[in-house]
Amino acid sequence: MIRLSLIGIGTGNPDHITLAGVRALREADLILLPRKGEARVDLIDLRRLLCRNLLDEGALSRVVEFDLPRRDGRDDYLGAVDEWHAAIAEVWHEQMTKNLPQGGQVAMLIWGDPSLYDSSLRIAARLRRQDDGQALDVEVVPGITSLQVLTAAHRIPLNALAEPVQITTGRRLRERGWPMDAASVAVMLDGGGAFQALSPEGLHIWWGAYLGMDKQCLIEGPLAEAGPAIVERRAALREHHGWIMDVYLLARTPLLSRPVAEPQRYFP
Amino acid sequence: MIRLSLIGIGTGNPDHITLAGVRALREADLILLPRKGEARVDLIDLRRLLCRNLLDEGALSRVVEFDLPRRDGRDDYLGAVDEWHAAIAEVWHEQMTKNLPQGGQVAMLIWGDPSLYDSSLRIAARLRRQDDGQALDVEVVPGITSLQVLTAAHRIPLNALAEPVQITTGRRLRERGWPMDAASVAVMLDGGGAFQALSPEGLHIWWGAYLGMDKQCLIEGPLAEAGPAIVERRAALREHHGWIMDVYLLARTPLLSRPVAEPQRYFP
Repeated sequence: MIRLSLIGIGTGNPDHITLAGVRALREADLILLPRKGEARVDLIDLRRLLCRNLLDEGALSRVVEFDLPRRDGRDDYLGAVDEWHAAIAEVWHEQMTKNLPQGGQVAMLIWGDPSLYDSSLRIAARLRRQDDGQALDVEVVPGITSLQVLTAAHRIPLNALAEPVQITTGRRLRERGWPMDAASVAVMLDGGGAFQALSPEGLHIWWGAYLGMDKQCLIEGPLAEAGPAIVERRAALREHHGWIMDVYLLARTPLLSRPVAEPQRYFP
Repeated sequence: MIRLSLIGIGTGNPDHITLAGVRALREADLILLPRKGEARVDLIDLRRLLCRNLLDEGALSRVVEFDLPRRDGRDDYLGAVDEWHAAIAEVWHEQMTKNLPQGGQVAMLIWGDPSLYDSSLRIAARLRRQDDGQALDVEVVPGITSLQVLTAAHRIPLNALAEPVQITTGRRLRERGWPMDAASVAVMLDGGGAFQALSPEGLHIWWGAYLGMDKQCLIEGPLAEAGPAIVERRAALREHHGWIMDVYLLARTPLLSRPVAEPQRYFP
């Protein structure tokens, strides 16, 4: 019997983890840390840092790093993702059976929260399918999403008063434009500047990159002005750090009748 | 100078708080605990429990409880909310100036996360407006939302693969039906059974009440079957406990190709 804990760890700040997350990490017999390639070395560094901060010396031997397969960059996005998830499930399965032949508790540290644009639950579902005898149980420990870190940093809510909010992807925003029936729209997984597909009139944007990390960068303002500034800053940051992760919120109506803080346009 | 920390504490389980939340609580010179009336006594009990668990004896004297004004139940919803927020801002202001005449750090423990259908940022914005000399700075410490506890308990994601998700209110679902351009819909603030306004065909529901608490109750299944069961169970639970808080997720497309866990229909 293997019990897999998918632990949301928030985004970039080791203090984002919850007390429940700390407990699940400490109770694990095996902690699997996937390496995603050199560019995003900061991301595995954060996971290593969490383990060093939260586990005692002896428990550190339970941490096992392994290499993730890479996603095929072909045009058929869903097909490529499907094959990639199958390959990852294969590797998880190998690591679990090799390191815990008698079963036990496995922890994986999930960036953000396992519920939002994250593939770990989909991969775990495949694991159950290819399971060769050992029963698998899955536990989810929620973590802070990048959207929550974004709204906290800008000191705004996600939704206008009593209004709905849509969470969507850059790809979708680019292809379909502003979603119907949404007063505010949060955008994740944007390869860059999908908001340029919108007519900026009357729209406000709150953007953040490297949220929770020391190099966090925030820009907010009317989309017509802030949009071009974000595109430029994003390219420069990506060049400088070698990678970027960013999310943003767009709204037509004011989210607060008056800001709780001075606007932080073009900061830092 | 007053620095107000709005600390998200998750929903009902004291282990939902993050390490950043624990730190902000411990650093506060004043911790304000609003009493919301007798029915929801469990909610203030959780906040008291967090303070007892996380503060040392001396720090407990910094905790001040106060009564919140009640919202007018009149038909003009937005008007009633506006007046109510103004009245709450008044009380916050009184408590802060009375207990911290020289300024300092104030903490408030916010159910869920301050970004999602929560009024604390809107009330803080009013505070800045009526500020009579002391500068106010606001910090947000994100917390786990009830939607994340719901999806974690059901072991599902919020979004179908690469698809958008809409977060909306029971009122809105009832008035407008299924939102356009959304593959899954998360519903909060439902006074009860707004999903009955939808044609249940092809829809699946994942419902949870008292999320994170010992009395947590989950139901999932096709809406046609699970819907009536939820309406009945909800009424019985509300009667039994004297109050209820619940949220749910609806989807047309499967959220996972195969569940990671056996369905928990009509549990417990």
